[in-house]
Amino acid sequence: MDSLERLASLFEKFPGIGPRQAERFVQYLLRGGSALRRELAKTIEELSGAVERCSECMRFFASLKKSATPVCTICADKDRDAKLLAIVASNADLNALERSHTYRGRYFVLGGTISLASEKTNHLRMRELLSSIPARARNGLREIILALPANPEGDATAVRLREELAPLSKESKFAITSLGRGLSTGSELEYADPDTIKNALAGRK
Amino acid sequence: MDSLERLASLFEKFPGIGPRQAERFVQYLLRGGSALRRELAKTIEELSGAVERCSECMRFFASLKKSATPVCTICADKDRDAKLLAIVASNADLNALERSHTYRGRYFVLGGTISLASEKTNHLRMRELLSSIPARARNGLREIILALPANPEGDATAVRLREELAPLSKESKFAITSLGRGLSTGSELEYADPDTIKNALAGRK
Amino acid sequence: MDSLERLASLFEKFPGIGPRQAERFVQYLLRGGSALRRELAKTIEELSGAVERCSECMRFFASLKKSATPVCTICADKDRDAKLLAIVASNADLNALERSHTYRGRYFVLGGTISLASEKTNHLRMRELLSSIPARARNGLREIILALPANPEGDATAVRLREELAPLSKESKFAITSLGRGLSTGSELEYADPDTIKNALAGRK
Amino acid sequence: MDSLERLASLFEKFPGIGPRQAERFVQYLLRGGSALRRELAKTIEELSGAVERCSECMRFFASLKKSATPVCTICADKDRDAKLLAIVASNADLNALERSHTYRGRYFVLGGTISLASEKTNHLRMRELLSSIPARARNGLREIILALPANPEGDATAVRLREELAPLSKESKFAITSLGRGLSTGSELEYADPDTIKNALAGRK
Repeated sequence: MDSLERLASLFEKFPGIGPRQAERFVQYLLRGGSALRRELAKTIEELSGAVERCSECMRFFASLKKSATPVCTICADKDRDAKLLAIVASNADLNALERSHTYRGRYFVLGGTISLASEKTNHLRMRELLSSIPARARNGLREIILALPANPEGDATAVRLREELAPLSKESKFAITSLGRGLSTGSELEYADPDTIKNALAGRK
Repeated sequence: MDSLERLASLFEKFPGIGPRQAERFVQYLLRGGSALRRELAKTIEELSGAVERCSECMRFFASLKKSATPVCTICADKDRDAKLLAIVASNADLNALERSHTYRGRYFVLGGTISLASEKTNHLRMRELLSSIPARARNGLREIILALPANPEGDATAVRLREELAPLSKESKFAITSLGRGLSTGSELEYADPDTIKNALAGRK
Repeated sequence: MDSLERLASLFEKFPGIGPRQAERFVQYLLRGGSALRRELAKTIEELSGAVERCSECMRFFASLKKSATPVCTICADKDRDAKLLAIVASNADLNALERSHTYRGRYFVLGGTISLASEKTNHLRMRELLSSIPARARNGLREIILALPANPEGDATAVRLREELAPLSKESKFAITSLGRGLSTGSELEYADPDTIKNALAGRK
Repeated sequence: MDSLERLASLFEKFPGIGPRQAERFVQYLLRGGSALRRELAKTIEELSGAVERCSECMRFFASLKKSATPVCTICADKDRDAKLLAIVASNADLNALERSHTYRGRYFVLGGTISLASEKTNHLRMRELLSSIPARARNGLREIILALPANPEGDATAVRLREELAPLSKESKFAITSLGRGLSTGSELEYADPDTIKNALAGRK
C-alpha cells in the first residue's frame, strides 16, 4: 500500500466517510499543495499537546497550559449556574445545547448511551459522574437534567441514571428531570408518530 | 382532449400527483377492467349522497341517513370526554390524534391555518367555533387544546385563537392549552434545531 | 366499511399510493364538492365505452367509434415509418419514446418483461407479436428495435425475443437491434457503474 | 481560534464536508488518541515527499524515487495499449474507468472541463496534451477517446478538444471518438430523459 492508499484508508475510518469520498479527500490534499498539507498535519499533531479532557464535564477542550486537573472554559465560567447539571451523551450533544443559547447551567459528558444489546455501561463515565455529585451538591446543585437522545438507548440510559442517582437525589435534595418530549419545531401533526403525539398531549400547557 | 387525457388531467390535480403518476393511474384503471372502473366511479359518486359534514366537529363523515344537523360517530359517542375540546387544522390532523389512542375528548376541525402572507382567517371556521363554545361550556367544557402544527402558520393561528377565545375562557372558566413541544420520538440532540432544544429544556420534567 | 373507507381502500390499490395518501385523496374529493366528484366518476366510467386496445400495437387508446379491429392514432398514421418496429414493455415506455420526438416508426406493446424468478412469458403478448410479423414484413419491415429497460428483466426479455424472432428475421431479412447503452445524459464518469462504463467504451464513436 | 476550532475549519474545506461533520472529524481524532493522530499527520506530510505528478498522464501517484520525468505505474506498464489514449477530466474519472476493468489503453488527465460561464481553458492541460501527441503518434497512437462527463461542460470540452486535435488527427491518422451515450445500466425507459432516449435510439445496434 503506497502513501496515497494509506491516507485514503485512514480517511475511510472517519465517521460517515466511504471509499469514494476518502479518495476525494486525498485528491483534495494533493491538489491543495504542500503548504495546506503541512498546516493540516501540524494542526492534527497539535491536538495531542493542546487538548485536555476537562476534569469536571469530561469533554475535550483546547488547553493553553498543562494542569493536573484541567478545567474547560464552560466549567471555569463563574456565570454558569451551578444549580443545574445537564448530563449529555456526547460532546456533539453538548454543542447542540450550547447552540440553542438557552442553557446556562453546567454539563457532564457521559460518553455514550447504554447499548440495548449488551446493557453494558462500562464504556460510560457512570462512576466519575456519581463521585462528582457530592461536591456539586455542596456547591448548590438543585437539578440534574437528563439531556439524552429521545430513542430507546437514551431512554434506557435515563432509567439507569435515575436508579443510580436516586439515593444522592434524596440525600442532597436535588431534582432529576428529563428533556421535554413533543412536537419538534416545524413538524405537522399529520406526519407525527403516535408516540410523539402522546407526549405532545401529555406535555400540553 | 380525449377521455384518457381528460382523466389524466383530473388525477393531476390530486394532492401530490404529477403528470407521470397521473398517467400511471389511467393505465392502472385501463388494465383493471370495467368492473374496477365501475366500482370506483360508483364509490366516488356515493360520497355526495352518503357524506355529511358533522355539525359539531365539522369533519366529513359517512352518514347513513340524512339529517338537518348531522353528527359524526366521534361527536355522537357519549364516552368521549366533553370536558376536553381539541382544535385541529384538518381532518388529517384529527386522524393523527386518533391514531395515537390517547386522546378521548372532542374535536373541532378549523379547516386550515392562518396564512402568514395574508393573515386572513375567512377560510377558517372561526365563527362556527366561537358560536359553539357557550353550549360546550354548559356541557362541562374545561379545556381547549390547540392541537395545531408546530410551524409559524400554526403558531399564528394559536395566537389568534387565544385572543378570540380569551373572553369566553374567562367567562366560562375553561383553560386554553397548546400541545407540548420538545424532542420528537427517535430524535437525537445532535441534529435537533435550537428552537426544539429550547422547547425541550423549557418543557423538562 | 363506510363509503369513505371503501374509497380510501380503492385508492390504496393505485400504483405507488399508501394508506396516508389514499386518505388525502378522499379528503380532496370531499372538499372538491359534488361537481368535481361527478366529473371524475363520469370520466372514469367513460373509459369503458371510449377506450379500445389497438389491434396493431396493443396499447389502449381513446376511440371515437367501435370497431372489430380498432387502430390507434399512431398505427393509423400513414407518415409513421413501417420499416421500423419498436417493441416496448409498457405503454409508459411507449410514451417515453414519443416524448423524445425522435422515433417515427411503429410500436408493439409487449405488456411487461420476463420475470427472472419464474421466467414465464405467458403474461406477455409474444404470440400476438410473432403472428403480426409476416404482415409487417410484407409491409416493408426492415428493423425491429428491442426498446426494453436496461435491467436484467429487460435483458432476459431481449434474449428470448431474439430467439423467437430469429427465424422470421432470417426469412424476411429484417434486422433486430437493441437500444444503445452508455452514459445517460447528465451523468458523470466518477459515479457511473462499471457496466455502464463498459458499455460506454464499447459504444464509443 | 484554538486548535480544535482551527482543525474543524480545515476539515470544513474538504470536499462535501459541512461544519457539523467537520466537528465530528475533530471529535473522532480526539477520541482516537495520539497514535492515530500521529499516523494521520505523518501520512499527510509524506504525500509531499512521496507523491509526484506523472509526466505522461498528469495524474498524481506515489513515487518511490525522485525523477525529473516521473512516470506512474499505468504509464510505465508496457502491456497498456499505446494505440488508445483516453482523455479524462479528473483522476476520479480515470479511477472509474480502471474500476470497469475493460480499458487497457493509456490516459491523459486534463484537469477539469470548460466552464460554460467563462469558456476559459487556462486551468486545463491543453498545451501539455497537444505537445504530447506527436510522440504518442510516433509510438503508434490510433484513437483518442474523449472520456468526458455527459454534461454540457463535458460536451463543450469535447468540442474544443476535437477542434484542437483535428490537424494532428489528420496528419497522424488517428481517430477521435467519444464515449457512447444511451441507457445506463439499470435504467428504465419510462424515467429516462428525452435526450438519453434520443442517444439510445441513435446508438442502437
